[in-house]
Amino acid sequence: MSGVLYPKLAVIGCGLIGGSIVRAAKASGVVGEVAVAEINPAFRARLEALQVADCITGDAAEAVKGADLVVLATFPSVLAKVAAEIGPHLKPGATLTDVGSVKAPVAEALSEAAAEGVFVIPGHPIAGTEQSGPDAGFAELFRNRWTILCPRPSEAPGYGAAVERLTRFWEALGANVELMDEKHHDMVLAVTSHLPHLIAYTIVGTAEHLEAVSEGEVMKFSAGGFRDFTRIAASDPVMWRDVFLLNKDAVLEIVARFMEDLQHLTRAIRYGDGATLEDHFARTREIRRGVIAAGQEMAEPNFGRDKART
Amino acid sequence: MSGVLYPKLAVIGCGLIGGSIVRAAKASGVVGEVAVAEINPAFRARLEALQVADCITGDAAEAVKGADLVVLATFPSVLAKVAAEIGPHLKPGATLTDVGSVKAPVAEALSEAAAEGVFVIPGHPIAGTEQSGPDAGFAELFRNRWTILCPRPSEAPGYGAAVERLTRFWEALGANVELMDEKHHDMVLAVTSHLPHLIAYTIVGTAEHLEAVSEGEVMKFSAGGFRDFTRIAASDPVMWRDVFLLNKDAVLEIVARFMEDLQHLTRAIRYGDGATLEDHFARTREIRRGVIAAGQEMAEPNFGRDKART
Repeated sequence: MSGVLYPKLAVIGCGLIGGSIVRAAKASGVVGEVAVAEINPAFRARLEALQVADCITGDAAEAVKGADLVVLATFPSVLAKVAAEIGPHLKPGATLTDVGSVKAPVAEALSEAAAEGVFVIPGHPIAGTEQSGPDAGFAELFRNRWTILCPRPSEAPGYGAAVERLTRFWEALGANVELMDEKHHDMVLAVTSHLPHLIAYTIVGTAEHLEAVSEGEVMKFSAGGFRDFTRIAASDPVMWRDVFLLNKDAVLEIVARFMEDLQHLTRAIRYGDGATLEDHFARTREIRRGVIAAGQEMAEPNFGRDKART
Repeated sequence: MSGVLYPKLAVIGCGLIGGSIVRAAKASGVVGEVAVAEINPAFRARLEALQVADCITGDAAEAVKGADLVVLATFPSVLAKVAAEIGPHLKPGATLTDVGSVKAPVAEALSEAAAEGVFVIPGHPIAGTEQSGPDAGFAELFRNRWTILCPRPSEAPGYGAAVERLTRFWEALGANVELMDEKHHDMVLAVTSHLPHLIAYTIVGTAEHLEAVSEGEVMKFSAGGFRDFTRIAASDPVMWRDVFLLNKDAVLEIVARFMEDLQHLTRAIRYGDGATLEDHFARTREIRRGVIAAGQEMAEPNFGRDKART
């Protein structure tokens, strides 16, 4: 037991991630009172029915009053606006964090909105499913996943202790915590998450537009690889629009490299250069072994998902 | 119970697919004697230790003698050579099939190799894991997966009955069977399997070459999407080299369309065109619903793999 770390938690935006934080924080006993602000009235009604928090309101300023930890879990594009709205209502000594997939532009906006005495510590739990909405959250979402915190260059007294407390909070939710520079975070995520999503969104669209192969056939015979992409390409459209626009520079750089590499392999196919293909494919297989060794995949039993699902 | 459909089954090449066919066929009771030919001596020794078949040999011609069903499960690039080698040893009335991911060029080679009176019915079970080798096979691999058969334009007496029998064989192994023109098969698979693999192989290589982000970081934070690609990119390098070279025309056409589509989305990111991104992402989400409806994905409980794995 960690004991209560934050007597009052306020979560702004209660979809998959916000809803999971609320559920996990309550389950782990690290918070006392929990307030949730959710702008969508239909979501709010559903959250009330689910009784996920002590206070459920449409007014973010009301929710954060007296809160010791404020987590912004809204769409990335409205983060700055919401931060400005709640800024004057934050209590001195409170910690303000977020959960978005892009950190540098958001971190700046949070610091601008927060008064002196509020500890701004941008964060990003690397966890999710393709579900969204008030029913999507669950308390186990963060277990054994990484949460990256990006402390700001602050010399305020108590800032280091605030970072430590937020680290313990995430650990109590089951996560492993890594501290990282915010710009570096945005580059790491461009590779490990944003490019994979862009690729998956693209390929699913490409398949949809074919004349020679029907959509029904694509779905029916998707087990050969395509199916995995459809899962990723079912992620929340608005959130991902925001992510790509906010992390534009890093994403464009990575996409350019990817296209070069794809053209390199495509050229090998065109000219029958089997050695180039085989060399490349053998190397990527090694990387998979690294992913398993890093504990980011079931190490055993040693089979693919196709088997696991039968 | 289907009863014995083929008194003797011969499988040439005993890796993931060949080894799974042998195990599934024995378990379901649709074959009597089972002979396996495997060219790799180390694999052969392991297959003997596992006792997967009644006869395990390095000589394909010996294995097919007297066989009623011969399944070629070797690397695609050596299929034509192996077919020519066993051709003279096939018994009249035997069925010759294969399991490769490309059908049109292979079908022609099989028909050339087989004497009159042998029923050539190319096939392709759409099932697999990223594992390979003698230990990779398991009897349940084909359960609830599709197997596509591509009957040739034959007017030989008994050909229709041979197709029906092979259909019943695959059904006994747990598969759903679909008949399809071989050229159409190659286009369908280019979209649903070959392009996804090429993309996954590419992106994993792109990540490896970055200077700003270490390989360790890529692995550690791979849960945001990248991890799924590493699984696909761990598939057998030699087999996939062969698939791309054999299905060159269809793959190049699909890759060209994919690149156009990726450039379209990339351009929207560059110019801040959020509406184009959101429209596209909302559409691909619908396709996911179709995949679930087509029974190619768990329909419920309704959560992503991240949750299932915790």
